[in-house]
Amino acid sequence: MSTSEPLAQGLKSANAGHKALEMDISIETLHGLYNAGSATPTDVVREVYSRIASYFDKAVWITLIPEAEALQCAKDLEQQYPNVTDRPALYGIPFSLKDSVDFAGMRTTVACESYAYTATSTAPVAQRVLDAGGILIGKTNLDQFATGLTGTRSPYGMPRCVHDSDYVSGGSSSGSVVSVAANLVSFTICTDTAGSTRVPASFNGMVGLKPTLGTISAVGLIPAVQTADCVCIIAATIDSTLKAWDVMRAYDEDDVYARDPAQLSLLTSQPVFPTGTSNSSITYGLPPQDLVYSVLSPEYSKLFSAFLAKLQQDSSFYRSTDFDYAPFASANAMLYGSSIVSQRIVAFKPYLDTHGYDQLHPVIRDIFKASSDFSAVRAYQDIFALAKDRRLAAKQFRSNQHDGIDVLIVPSTTMHPTVSEILADPINLNKHLGEFTHFVNLLDLCAVAVPLSATWTSKNGKKMPFSVTLISTPGRDRDLLELGRKIMAMTYD
Amino acid sequence: MSTSEPLAQGLKSANAGHKALEMDISIETLHGLYNAGSATPTDVVREVYSRIASYFDKAVWITLIPEAEALQCAKDLEQQYPNVTDRPALYGIPFSLKDSVDFAGMRTTVACESYAYTATSTAPVAQRVLDAGGILIGKTNLDQFATGLTGTRSPYGMPRCVHDSDYVSGGSSSGSVVSVAANLVSFTICTDTAGSTRVPASFNGMVGLKPTLGTISAVGLIPAVQTADCVCIIAATIDSTLKAWDVMRAYDEDDVYARDPAQLSLLTSQPVFPTGTSNSSITYGLPPQDLVYSVLSPEYSKLFSAFLAKLQQDSSFYRSTDFDYAPFASANAMLYGSSIVSQRIVAFKPYLDTHGYDQLHPVIRDIFKASSDFSAVRAYQDIFALAKDRRLAAKQFRSNQHDGIDVLIVPSTTMHPTVSEILADPINLNKHLGEFTHFVNLLDLCAVAVPLSATWTSKNGKKMPFSVTLISTPGRDRDLLELGRKIMAMTYD
Repeated sequence: MSTSEPLAQGLKSANAGHKALEMDISIETLHGLYNAGSATPTDVVREVYSRIASYFDKAVWITLIPEAEALQCAKDLEQQYPNVTDRPALYGIPFSLKDSVDFAGMRTTVACESYAYTATSTAPVAQRVLDAGGILIGKTNLDQFATGLTGTRSPYGMPRCVHDSDYVSGGSSSGSVVSVAANLVSFTICTDTAGSTRVPASFNGMVGLKPTLGTISAVGLIPAVQTADCVCIIAATIDSTLKAWDVMRAYDEDDVYARDPAQLSLLTSQPVFPTGTSNSSITYGLPPQDLVYSVLSPEYSKLFSAFLAKLQQDSSFYRSTDFDYAPFASANAMLYGSSIVSQRIVAFKPYLDTHGYDQLHPVIRDIFKASSDFSAVRAYQDIFALAKDRRLAAKQFRSNQHDGIDVLIVPSTTMHPTVSEILADPINLNKHLGEFTHFVNLLDLCAVAVPLSATWTSKNGKKMPFSVTLISTPGRDRDLLELGRKIMAMTYD
Repeated sequence: MSTSEPLAQGLKSANAGHKALEMDISIETLHGLYNAGSATPTDVVREVYSRIASYFDKAVWITLIPEAEALQCAKDLEQQYPNVTDRPALYGIPFSLKDSVDFAGMRTTVACESYAYTATSTAPVAQRVLDAGGILIGKTNLDQFATGLTGTRSPYGMPRCVHDSDYVSGGSSSGSVVSVAANLVSFTICTDTAGSTRVPASFNGMVGLKPTLGTISAVGLIPAVQTADCVCIIAATIDSTLKAWDVMRAYDEDDVYARDPAQLSLLTSQPVFPTGTSNSSITYGLPPQDLVYSVLSPEYSKLFSAFLAKLQQDSSFYRSTDFDYAPFASANAMLYGSSIVSQRIVAFKPYLDTHGYDQLHPVIRDIFKASSDFSAVRAYQDIFALAKDRRLAAKQFRSNQHDGIDVLIVPSTTMHPTVSEILADPINLNKHLGEFTHFVNLLDLCAVAVPLSATWTSKNGKKMPFSVTLISTPGRDRDLLELGRKIMAMTYD
């Protein structure tokens, strides 16, 4: 079968290097082509491998599936589902998997060669995507042990921002985000503990969904901070995110932190956000403006300010004046300033007991050493302090018990550093990037990072994205995604 | 108003010392007298103070409310509610409060003189009882810092079992249980972290309700192990327990571990236990019989065996053959063998930092010293291990996801030691008593201890109670109480 016209255009773009960005490979686009009979999964797999071969950045993947295997997978799907109407939800959709998640027969490295092992089973979340017709292309690079927000902490290289390669990709889902933003796959299965999906999504202009904790199985994921780890999605569009999310989320009784389905259905049956009539506007909260503008880069400040002006002009949004950001700020400070980081040592204790710290990435080594000195008493103090913040934060949101905001809106991150800037100050700058991300999982909230249509200009003259993150209480993932769609569609002069 | 006839009989009993036991002072009895106009709250308060004055055991109370104050409270109620139909749920009901719970203007000692302070506010749970017409009589003795199952670890003396004063009362709610079992009050507000309600209830033949975590406010309670602490009820009857429970439970947003009301209503709306028709029997699980009979005293073994025979004969009960006790045993071992005990240090850290360990009860001193040496890494390892046990335990119970038991039935405790026996081996024997109690809160289960109608004979020839504990998943408190009623009514040859 010959390569279809749109794909042929895509191929041309791919051959032009960075221009691959111009070729949309979203789930809805591919399904449009499949349904119209103008392309097959085989065509797409060939196109994907062609793009990967020609894409300049070789730090994206840690392990690629051999093309022949992916093609076989595509052919099997074509044989199994000849009729359009019978096809499963992710039929023929190429996806990538962060290399902290197990896939049977492939190595899991967590970006640490001396840690790596060959997985004997496939993580349930990846299996669900396969069962729904997804085609795994490869396992993506990440900040070692999923620790970091920059994408510069891997011995497998530093993936670069797709818009300007002098800038970091963001992390820890660095290879994941580039695999999507460079239009090499339709979406990625990644993770987010402290911002590892939202920050890279922000830097590359992608949608990053950090779902409600316990709604997507974390079985087969190497834990970072187990009480806060969350399997996530990065995709180019809201629709692609929704389609992947619908397949990926499922109760897994083997995940000890999975939420009970009855509870979950209760959460998701709660009233959705008000629609845009004048007397039922969406009530939003913001971090204190003095905090925001003291931490944002000048470019980000300007774009966030323009965005807030848009919201103010829009009668379907109402800014709460008595919103209290204190518990969010308090929890944010706890992630790197408390015993919570000791959870990292738990997951890697057998490795560290055998190999010590010598073979770790130098930055990760320093972080891990600093994470091991807390006492159990301190751990429980922190747990109780966090429980208090969690309750205080929950009180800020609308519920059956009280009024409050529907959504907290924050800049996804504070600035977009170049690779050189990060390498000059790897710890502090990393922390700075998490000013508005760290608290989300600690407070049991869900979040979606969405790019605005407005951009800023990099030092190399490239158009760079800016992103805001929408945050709400457990179960409101879909509401946030729909709100994100609305915010993405806003236009700026 | 003259003392009513039944109360006059009660007064006679009270004057006879131990015989006070013969006089029922349950909520339903008192309300029967009030409704019939044959007694007033004033009569009851006078009777209560008369009984307290004549009761042999002076270790029950740490602080008594002055009689004049309690009488004023009774008179105020009589004036405020002249009409029977207007009266609140606990109108004129005398109750006691464990001295680890704050009551404004009274000292909170937690059985440690050097820790004591005068509370400036009243715990919401106590306020709810007051608002419902309850009359506080006093604050009761407890094992220091609510640590212990024996009732022998208080500088304020050792309350004794009401049936034979050579035997321990059980703890840590020692004074609480005796205040009820000696018919000095109608019920007590106490606590249970590792068995502190169930064990004393068992030793004194009382009903002990350890409700679903987060359903009764723990604000104003001095924490022991905060993630496992639970405000509880001891009463003589199921009906009294139900009446007190209906008043005490309420969502308290200031309690960081309070369960969301919507979630709670979901839990309590789950199907109740099957009723007693042949094809919808109650499915129960038991601990392995070799474990049970290796840890129970000979007298307890005999009674538990007779009880199991009763269940087997009853077609409304069905014993599950594929019930797995392993996660319960695993969690039980964790309470005293893991970092979970470090939570105790958290609550008392400011005290310990100032006073050191010197002024503690010698047994508590040893326990606290042993609780302070764990690392944060170990704390998180334990938390994850416990999360796994919790999930495995939940899988043993019937739910929407899977079949399973309705209720786990265990002996409430393993033996009834004398005071001398405990003093000879205070740590090991205490641990032994918790063989079937420690896991309940750690695994987020609810439980009710109920006395059987069968008894054993103490070395002094007294009739002594034996109790079983019914355990189930969160929200099934009411089902357990109704099942307890049925089990209490069973007769033995």
